[in-house]
Order: sequence, then C-alpha cells, then structure tokens
Amino acid sequence: MQSERMPNFLKNRAYLTPDRPAVIFNGQEVTFQELYEHSAEMAGKLQYLGIKKGDYAGVLLKNHIDTVVILFALQLIGVPAVILNNRLTPKEISWQLKDSKAACLILDQEFPCEDKKIPLITKEILMSAIKETPEILEEIDLSAVCTVMYTSGTTGNPKGVIQTFGNHWSSAIGSALNLGLTENDRWLCSVPLFHISGFSILMKSVIYGMPVVLHESFNVDKTLEDITDKKVTIMSVVGTMLARITDAIGESKLPKYFRCFLLGGGPAPLPLLEACLEKGLPVYQTYGMTETSSQIVTLAPEYSISKLGSAGKPLFLAQLKIQLENGQKAQPKEAGEIVVKGPNVTPGYLYRPDVVKDKFQNGWFCTGDIGYIDEDGFLYVLDRRSDLIISGGENIYPAEIESALLAHPAVLDAGVTGMEDRTWGQVPIAYIVLKEGAEVSKDALWQFCAERLAKYKIPKTFHFTDSLPRNAAKKLMRRKLRESRVLE
Amino acid sequence: MQSERMPNFLKNRAYLTPDRPAVIFNGQEVTFQELYEHSAEMAGKLQYLGIKKGDYAGVLLKNHIDTVVILFALQLIGVPAVILNNRLTPKEISWQLKDSKAACLILDQEFPCEDKKIPLITKEILMSAIKETPEILEEIDLSAVCTVMYTSGTTGNPKGVIQTFGNHWSSAIGSALNLGLTENDRWLCSVPLFHISGFSILMKSVIYGMPVVLHESFNVDKTLEDITDKKVTIMSVVGTMLARITDAIGESKLPKYFRCFLLGGGPAPLPLLEACLEKGLPVYQTYGMTETSSQIVTLAPEYSISKLGSAGKPLFLAQLKIQLENGQKAQPKEAGEIVVKGPNVTPGYLYRPDVVKDKFQNGWFCTGDIGYIDEDGFLYVLDRRSDLIISGGENIYPAEIESALLAHPAVLDAGVTGMEDRTWGQVPIAYIVLKEGAEVSKDALWQFCAERLAKYKIPKTFHFTDSLPRNAAKKLMRRKLRESRVLE
Repeated sequence: MQSERMPNFLKNRAYLTPDRPAVIFNGQEVTFQELYEHSAEMAGKLQYLGIKKGDYAGVLLKNHIDTVVILFALQLIGVPAVILNNRLTPKEISWQLKDSKAACLILDQEFPCEDKKIPLITKEILMSAIKETPEILEEIDLSAVCTVMYTSGTTGNPKGVIQTFGNHWSSAIGSALNLGLTENDRWLCSVPLFHISGFSILMKSVIYGMPVVLHESFNVDKTLEDITDKKVTIMSVVGTMLARITDAIGESKLPKYFRCFLLGGGPAPLPLLEACLEKGLPVYQTYGMTETSSQIVTLAPEYSISKLGSAGKPLFLAQLKIQLENGQKAQPKEAGEIVVKGPNVTPGYLYRPDVVKDKFQNGWFCTGDIGYIDEDGFLYVLDRRSDLIISGGENIYPAEIESALLAHPAVLDAGVTGMEDRTWGQVPIAYIVLKEGAEVSKDALWQFCAERLAKYKIPKTFHFTDSLPRNAAKKLMRRKLRESRVLE
Repeated sequence: MQSERMPNFLKNRAYLTPDRPAVIFNGQEVTFQELYEHSAEMAGKLQYLGIKKGDYAGVLLKNHIDTVVILFALQLIGVPAVILNNRLTPKEISWQLKDSKAACLILDQEFPCEDKKIPLITKEILMSAIKETPEILEEIDLSAVCTVMYTSGTTGNPKGVIQTFGNHWSSAIGSALNLGLTENDRWLCSVPLFHISGFSILMKSVIYGMPVVLHESFNVDKTLEDITDKKVTIMSVVGTMLARITDAIGESKLPKYFRCFLLGGGPAPLPLLEACLEKGLPVYQTYGMTETSSQIVTLAPEYSISKLGSAGKPLFLAQLKIQLENGQKAQPKEAGEIVVKGPNVTPGYLYRPDVVKDKFQNGWFCTGDIGYIDEDGFLYVLDRRSDLIISGGENIYPAEIESALLAHPAVLDAGVTGMEDRTWGQVPIAYIVLKEGAEVSKDALWQFCAERLAKYKIPKTFHFTDSLPRNAAKKLMRRKLRESRVLE
C-alpha cells in the first residue's frame, strides 16, 4: 500500500506555511498562500479557454512572476507544460509544438510564433479571460508528466524530455540532502525558467517552502545587490556568469549568510574555480542535464579544495558508473561513458520509445558524456560525447583544451571543435575571443598549449573571433562552431 | 521507468561522506566508513551463523554501538529485523518470535529468553563467529521490509507493524523538510532503539550523513553535558524526559546551536509546554506512532506560540483528516478519528491481512486516535485511542493486560484503564471480578502479571469489584471504568 501519490505540491505548501514568502520579483513579493490563490485563479482562466486535464500546453514565456503563476496553474489542473526555449525561431517553435501534440501555446506577445494549427494564448488574452472555478487536483501521481523540455542530441531533431512530478521531487530532495536546508534559505534564479536549471528552483521553492528571488535575466550588478538586499543564500550559475561575478566582486566579500553558488552547465575551467577559491567564494560544482531534472552529481563542501575540478559524487538517491564501449564497467581513472540511475532520471522521451530503448539499459541512462571516476569515487567530466574529437586513434576532449587556453591571460573565451583531416581523421581547431585591448600571436598560443598539452591535443589552427555561439544557458554550442567553420 | 530502488543506504553514505562521524557512544566515535566496515564484517558473521536473505531476525538488544552495527548489518544482507522491546517477559518474547516466524534471536546475554525453538545468538557467540565474505545488497527495494515492531491493539495479542525502507526514507525526508538540515546537525538518541522514536534516528543518520550521539538510556545530567560537549543540535524526547530536563536546567541556557527538542510519545501537558516556552527551550510537538514510522504531524517553528498545544500540520509528503463515525469528514473543530496517509505509513501488519482490511480505507490509515483540526488546519490530539495508556513514553494496551489477568484461575473478568501519575503521565490500574468462591491476594495477582508482562505493564493497583461496565454487545466500556474510578 506504498503510496505513489502525494498532496498537490503548491496547494499543500500554501496549507502548511501560507505566510512564508514564495516569490520575490522586481519589488513584488507574494506568499505561498497568495501564489496558490493567483495560480488557482489562473487555472480557472485556462479552463475557461478550453485547456483541460490530459492536454499538453506549450509555454513560451520569459522569467516573470506571471510565468511562475502560469506554470503552477497548469500543475494544479494536471496539464503538463511543454516549456519552449525563448530563443527558438518560429520554425523550431512550430516543430516542437507539433511534435509534442500541444493543445495550445501560452506566450508572451513579443515572441515570434506563426503557428496557425493551435490556439495561441497570449498573456493579454489569458488575463482578460473569465475565471471559472478550477478543478484542482488534490493529489498528484508521482509518475505523471509535469513538464517536457526539448533537447538536441547528436542526431538530428530535438526530443522532448519527460520530467515527472517524481523526477522533480527526487531532484529537490537529493539536492536538500546534499546542500542542507535552513529556514533562512533564499534561492536567486536568474537562469531561464525554460531550462531545467531555472525550473528546478521553482519546484524546490514549493517543496522546501523557500522563497525564490527571480530575475528576468542575469545582471551582475543586480545579482550582487540582491544577494545583500534580499538576503540570498544560494544562487544557480553557469561558468560565464560566475566569471563575471568574480570580476565584479573585486576585493569585497559576500555576506556571511550566502551559502553557495551552484555551478552547472558544463565542465568549468579550472582557473575560474581557483579564482573563486582564492576569493573565498563558495562554489559547488555540479553535473546534470535535462534528463536528470538538474544536478545529479555534486561536489560536497568538504572536498571543494582537495577535489577541485571534480563534479563530485552522486546525490544520495542516485547512482553513477563509467561504462566502456564493450559494456564493461571502467576501472578507477579509466575514461568512458557516464551512465546514471535514480528517481530523478527521466522515464524517457515523448513519443520516442526508440530512443528510450537506445539510451536506457536496465534502468541506467546512458548520458553520452565522457568522464572518469577517481580512486575515491569522484567524477571528473571530460566532455560531452557529441564533441569528442578522435585524432589518429587518440580521444581528444575539447573542454580540456579550452580550459588550457582560458588560462592564458589574454584569452577571454575559447571554443574548440574538430576539423576533418586527411592524415589523422580529425584535428582540433580553436576559436579565441581576446580580452579587450589584449594581444597575442597564434604562435604564442601554440607555444602556450604545447607547454600544457600532449602534442596531438594542440589545436591545428587558431581563429580570432568576436564571440562564441552559446545557448541561453551560456553553454558553448560546439556544433554551431563546427557549422560556422564549414562556411568559412 | 521511475525507480523504486535506491543504493543501499549505509553503503552509499560511506561512499559519499566516508569521513563524517556517524555514531558517538561512550567516548567512542566511528565514521560512516568505519560503521560500514564494521557492519559488513558483522554481516559476514551473521551469514556464517546461517542467517540469510529472506529470513526475519529477532533482535533483543539495548542501546549500544554494537546494536547499531548489528541493525545495519542486517540491512546490508536484506534480513528484516524484528525489533523486540527490552522489557518483555520471556513469554512475550517467545510469542512475538513465533508470530513473526523469526529464524533466530540476536540478544544481549543479560536479557531473559527461554525460547528453545530457534537459535539464540548472544553477542558473545556473534563476536566470536568466523566472518564470511558477506553478500551485500548494492541496492534496496523501497517496498521491501526493513523492520518489524510489535504494537498491541484493542484486541488481545500484539501485531507486527511492517516498516519498509520506503517508510523510513519518507519519514526522514519529511522530517528534514520540516526541521531543515544543516551540516552541523547532531541528534541525541537516548530513547530506545527498539522504539521507532530511536530507530528512526539511525535511519536519519545514514540518510542525512549526520552523527548520532547515542546514550544507553536517558540520564538528565549526561544529556545536558553532551548537548554542550558533543554539540548536539536536536534531541528526541517524551514528556517525562522533557519535564526532568526543564527542572534540571534551572535558570541556565542551552547553547545557541541547539535547535530543538522533538517531543513525541503522546499529548504533552500544557503546563510543560508553557514552562519550556518561558525558559526559551525550543520544542517541536509531534504526533506519530509505530505505524507512521515516527512523527507524521509536527508543529512548525513559526506557530510554536500561537498554536501552543497543537501537534501541528502533517509532514509535506503526508495527509491528514478527521473522520466521523458515519465515515464523513469532520468540520473544523469537530472531533473525530484521526486518519492519515503518506509514504511513511506502514503497508500493514505481518501475516495479518484481516487487520489491514480493518484499519485501511482507500490508502488512508485509521489511527483510532481522537482529535480535531482547527480552522487554520492545525491538529489537536484529544486522546489516544480511548483505551491506550501512555506511561513514560511506552504504549500500554489494556487488552493485553486484561488477557494476562484472565488467565488466572481465580479471575472471572478484568478491566484495565489508565490513572494519571505525576512521574509517568499515566499508569495502568486493574479492576477484577473474581469467580464465585475464588480468592486471590493483590500480591499474588502482581506476581502473576510479573511473570507474563513487562514491568511497566503491571497494574499499579488492583481493585476488586462485582461487575464491569459492559455494553449490550458485552464490549468493555473502558471509558466508563475511568469515570467510575474518578468517583471512587
């Protein structure tokens, strides 16, 4: 009689701690009771507009308190949200809506959408709709779909990653067991709500009873201001954000109550981690993806120095192993595919049982990423598999080369990808963004690498450029790099 | 593909945070790595002695670091522990061993056990056994039985309450979401490990990665000493313990890092809660039972003053309602039976599907306790199941004592009820109807009980009477018994 059902997250939170603040956004502050009431009202409007349990609703919204209300309204009436990336082109939007069989699209007016096949519900339409009495689900089924987020893989079209209520619940619980949880906690969210990095903060908020300080986007000054003014204790960041914070903070200190930066979005360059260490900025490096409903591996505080550069160990409820191409488990320090398991891991992809079959083995999810586990059980992420460069039989991981280049004082940003080569199959090439006013020759960069990297890892060519293609989460899109190279 | 399996709790904890202290006992301190190694060794010995996966093992041990090791050893090899109350008489022990079909009994030499039917493994035998290489379960199934603890009901013999790994996991998670969790937390356990109040602290320890400061039994001086010396932050208490702490502490203050007393074991007297409030002692009143794997309702910090005397609101993952005799849900402030639901609630009783049928309705567990919920959703427990006597935190079931008394050749009828007691809260007293012409002294009755019942269950006084108040169905009306006592 083990229960797989739980009380509806937001409704329950409003019952348990109605007066605690839930969301702080642009000078506005709502309690959990108010957030519930607003979401219930919104649910009534959605219902009036014909959205009902069993539908999937597309959502194309920016970080805003209304977005929080809409996302929770959908949860209250059992409508999974297909959360679309704000930077998609109209063609990409239509493709994902069609693929997910969404019944409608809820969107900010400003986003381009030409879809004619389903109702487009702008916020204007939504706000002026009549509120029906919503049919609120008292309980949720942990195995029910809560959200769908699209990710690309190594092969062609994006796939809709299913995230169940149980996935989000387990992710929040795993994180709390690792980071701890205090009644003073306040989480700053300036990463996009359409990414799992941002959305998972909302789920933590209702599950923990913790306020979220929500920003429209990342702004380094507003970040430092709100850490002090709004008493932020935890903030989710990616490497580029953390680098700008580290620069801006100079010699000053963060308040004592600030507990940590949770660093995700790909392997972080070592020099950045070292700079944070030097400045006393508490950073938890993490490893995770849409399919694991955010972090699944995190470096615990006591190892932040001795295991610098590691992504850490799995969350308590998850498991991790490294698998070789022959299916065997790797030895310590032997690189292979990172394979994970746990209740925070997606049950699969929307309407794609073929991919599930391909990426799951006995409940283990094959991430496609490359890494190794050291003799103490700590994970080191070498690279995402799609980026792997194979040169003369040797595996080359771009992130490793980028990390080396970023250590050069003149280099602001670096991206490495593979180029076809008649002799070696592939060779690495580098794209470099220099710091303002800085100068360095290609020969000097070659020399710099030669001092740090095995010869086969040294980029064959160095291209100077103004910026690198990064997605909304600031993750380097090496595929784009590769495509841009082809067009040169 | 939602996973109902998790890594083995202790093994995983030893992997994640090997160097954190796990148990502190009488000047000894072991880390999680050491606790795992000791438990794995112990598992090898148990295996050598013939205990294997699928068996149930009886356990009759006092609070001691060895007990922790033995309990975790059983978990490592998938053997549910039938944890027996130390105060049971040999007859009661044999009954529970037989009822649970235990394959053996692991016991401290000093406890009396005359069972001849199954192997008795004293700690001496265990320690000198050869250690085999244990077959350790890498994963646990959350629906598998972890422990069995016996409780009595309204009808005679005790029943074995099943507690799954999922029950203990959910209990620990629900508590962390309510109380918070910090890396400085240390939980003092001087309540018995054979009770869910004590055992649940062990489970929290491995799930949180938190040290337990373990005491053999409650001693007020040692409590105050260790709160300071061992930096205890949380302590589980029952009313009588808290009263003695309140007395002993006088005008002095507890250290700032001490976060709270978690108060269970029956409704607390208001004057005690008021005294704590006055002295600034942080108390979280809770409500729970063996069937809910410890607390299921707890008063959150922000309401400790405004809702003094309330047991609070349910843990985040649980649900609560008040049910009237006609099966309807009660209105706010209307008293009725307390009915609960959640993943921390037992799936049922060992080999007793009849009782499961009786006590569960659509996944809701009928506690038999009486209470009401106020207009803000706070639970007030009015009375434990009309007949339950709570004496110094121990549950005493009148039916069990009556059953023992009825076995005496001179006794025609017997009724037991609780009497208020300044030290213990309540003590049992008995009303006896003798057979015609029969004679027996009160001392003889006492002696007769002492051979059959744990000492705390022996009636404090015996009253001879001509008849007992029974209803038309001949069911003993213990409430009337209580009222008649008042009139004496």
